[in-house]
Amino acid sequence: MSEDVYVIGTDMIRFGRFEDATPPRLAAKAALMALDDCGLSIRDVQAVYSGNCTETMVGQRTLQLIGQTGVPVVNVTNACATGATAFREAWIAIKAGLYDIVLAVGSEKMGKGMLVPKNSGGTPIPSEGLAGSNTMPAVFAQMGMEHSRAYGTTFEQFARVSVKNHHHSTLNPKAMYQKETPLEEVMGSEMMAYPITKLMCSVNVDGSAAAVLCSARKARELGLTGRAVRVRGSGLASDPFSERNLVQADVNTVTRLAARTAYEMASVGPQDVDLVELHDCFATAEICHYENLGLCGEGEGGRFLDSGATTLGGKVPVNMSGGLLSKGHPLGATGIANIYEIVTHLRGEAGARQVEGARIGMTHVVGLGSACAVHILEKV
Amino acid sequence: MSEDVYVIGTDMIRFGRFEDATPPRLAAKAALMALDDCGLSIRDVQAVYSGNCTETMVGQRTLQLIGQTGVPVVNVTNACATGATAFREAWIAIKAGLYDIVLAVGSEKMGKGMLVPKNSGGTPIPSEGLAGSNTMPAVFAQMGMEHSRAYGTTFEQFARVSVKNHHHSTLNPKAMYQKETPLEEVMGSEMMAYPITKLMCSVNVDGSAAAVLCSARKARELGLTGRAVRVRGSGLASDPFSERNLVQADVNTVTRLAARTAYEMASVGPQDVDLVELHDCFATAEICHYENLGLCGEGEGGRFLDSGATTLGGKVPVNMSGGLLSKGHPLGATGIANIYEIVTHLRGEAGARQVEGARIGMTHVVGLGSACAVHILEKV
Repeated sequence: MSEDVYVIGTDMIRFGRFEDATPPRLAAKAALMALDDCGLSIRDVQAVYSGNCTETMVGQRTLQLIGQTGVPVVNVTNACATGATAFREAWIAIKAGLYDIVLAVGSEKMGKGMLVPKNSGGTPIPSEGLAGSNTMPAVFAQMGMEHSRAYGTTFEQFARVSVKNHHHSTLNPKAMYQKETPLEEVMGSEMMAYPITKLMCSVNVDGSAAAVLCSARKARELGLTGRAVRVRGSGLASDPFSERNLVQADVNTVTRLAARTAYEMASVGPQDVDLVELHDCFATAEICHYENLGLCGEGEGGRFLDSGATTLGGKVPVNMSGGLLSKGHPLGATGIANIYEIVTHLRGEAGARQVEGARIGMTHVVGLGSACAVHILEKV
Repeated sequence: MSEDVYVIGTDMIRFGRFEDATPPRLAAKAALMALDDCGLSIRDVQAVYSGNCTETMVGQRTLQLIGQTGVPVVNVTNACATGATAFREAWIAIKAGLYDIVLAVGSEKMGKGMLVPKNSGGTPIPSEGLAGSNTMPAVFAQMGMEHSRAYGTTFEQFARVSVKNHHHSTLNPKAMYQKETPLEEVMGSEMMAYPITKLMCSVNVDGSAAAVLCSARKARELGLTGRAVRVRGSGLASDPFSERNLVQADVNTVTRLAARTAYEMASVGPQDVDLVELHDCFATAEICHYENLGLCGEGEGGRFLDSGATTLGGKVPVNMSGGLLSKGHPLGATGIANIYEIVTHLRGEAGARQVEGARIGMTHVVGLGSACAVHILEKV
């Protein structure tokens, strides 16, 4: 097609709860860190894509803090896929030949409480709203129960997802939580919606992440290919139909659609992927996404987890960052934080949690509403 | 550079106040009308860019009403430049070679009252907020007073902008208002912030507009070049500095920056432009933008208006639609409604308000915050 696009710089702040933070302040920190990561300054950036779910003009307000250069700024929102969408639009702008160096930055100031952003303009699943099952834990509990019914997946298997991701996060200094969380603690924590306990829910945190994207040509010219990572595939999808089981439509089907697009564009298959950051907004989702992304066969998600395949040292480690369950989930930042995690492994810079020999990694986010983004990244 | 991009279909609803409307319902109407305009269906659309300032996931919610096909949907916001930004991102996605047919749709459900969107996340000009001058009429009154001080522009000249645009709107069946508004009525209406009276403020209305963009190659294949319009230039800019007169930075300088980019890309100059839809959010702004867009010399805006150059039949008619002052200004829709107006003239389909022989047209929107988008369109 057109120009190859590299990620040449990326970073994220340690996720946490910052009472005085604003989205622009959070975004500014990550943006400066990502620029510093590749030795560039805001003056080198030719366009900015900002992802944030709750406030207005966050991209421009970020530049007020780190330098107003007059470049095009676009603010995007796409529920939980907001950050990934900002990244994708930056990639598209370079592919179009308009720019060589584009900054994608995602940020979110979350409140405590349920994973429903402010100003959401209605429940994500209107027809279920009146039944009281429009809260996120209920939606993803239903997803888990459906998997249990069809394939016999157990409460304990779902809980082990959380144990694994919390274990991974003990190796990630940028994660909100960094402590082992044993199975009995996960299973014994407050029940939100069976089979989801409180420790099987993603963590509401404030956060930000950024990536500097660059045309391959310019990266070579700048001598920045040594730590560069190629964007090999990008898929974005919305619901392909409306008159079916809503969870299936919003989460499973849309993931399969986006993954297929990304795999086809990248000319790789699931067997080529060395590690994955996927959307474990609730523990049940991770097991379903193993199958949605083709990492294992239909109905084998629970056994795939049990085999250790998705744990550090396994065949395809999943959510090495600790995932949304332990690293945390600041909506607009999450998609780019996933990019940061994969890039860090592909560079061989992930320290204690390094997936050895990683050459190809995948990111996945899915927002109810609906938007699913899948990216496939490759070591240059 | 890359693929030529055409606008092959476009339409807008008549702007007005619709108590029961929601942004997705407004957007759905315009989208279907634009598709109908080129004889395509939602099944032909490969990606959707939605512009809306106040609600979430409007693009996806629009597809729930007109057909969920699973295509990528991106929601963008950029203050008053929101619709134009959605249009621009659609153009970029085709230029990148990712898609042949992309829908851009903008919508807004405005309340009555001041032109400050809900959820604005703070005043647009924080440092002026405490002084009470952060309302839009005050900002644009200051812009006008500055022009008066420097060039002697009069209250009456500013008021004549509104007279002209209201006159144009009498010829536009899609405008909110369609009645002549004499000078004495404009000057005698309630004073908002000198030199801006109530009839010199843009009209808060609900509205939507849509455009179907298509690669030149595909348009030829579909036999849709007969009424097609080429996107010849696109400029998007944000504030180039922070420590200066804020109105100058936000409105004038950013317009010049975006216009320069668009002119350079299009390889045309102001003298080549046959008509313009520019951001007359207040009457004072239109006169300043004549100069910002290079339609006349510095300080000559008032006299340029007096000469009749910008009235139907003049050298370069401005705001033939009636502009924001009389057609109305539903934030997320405005940028695409401008595209609709220019395309309609370039096609020779503007009826009583047709600018005869128009071959090149320009659109301009500028949002405080800040974002300015300029597009140059050309008859194929």
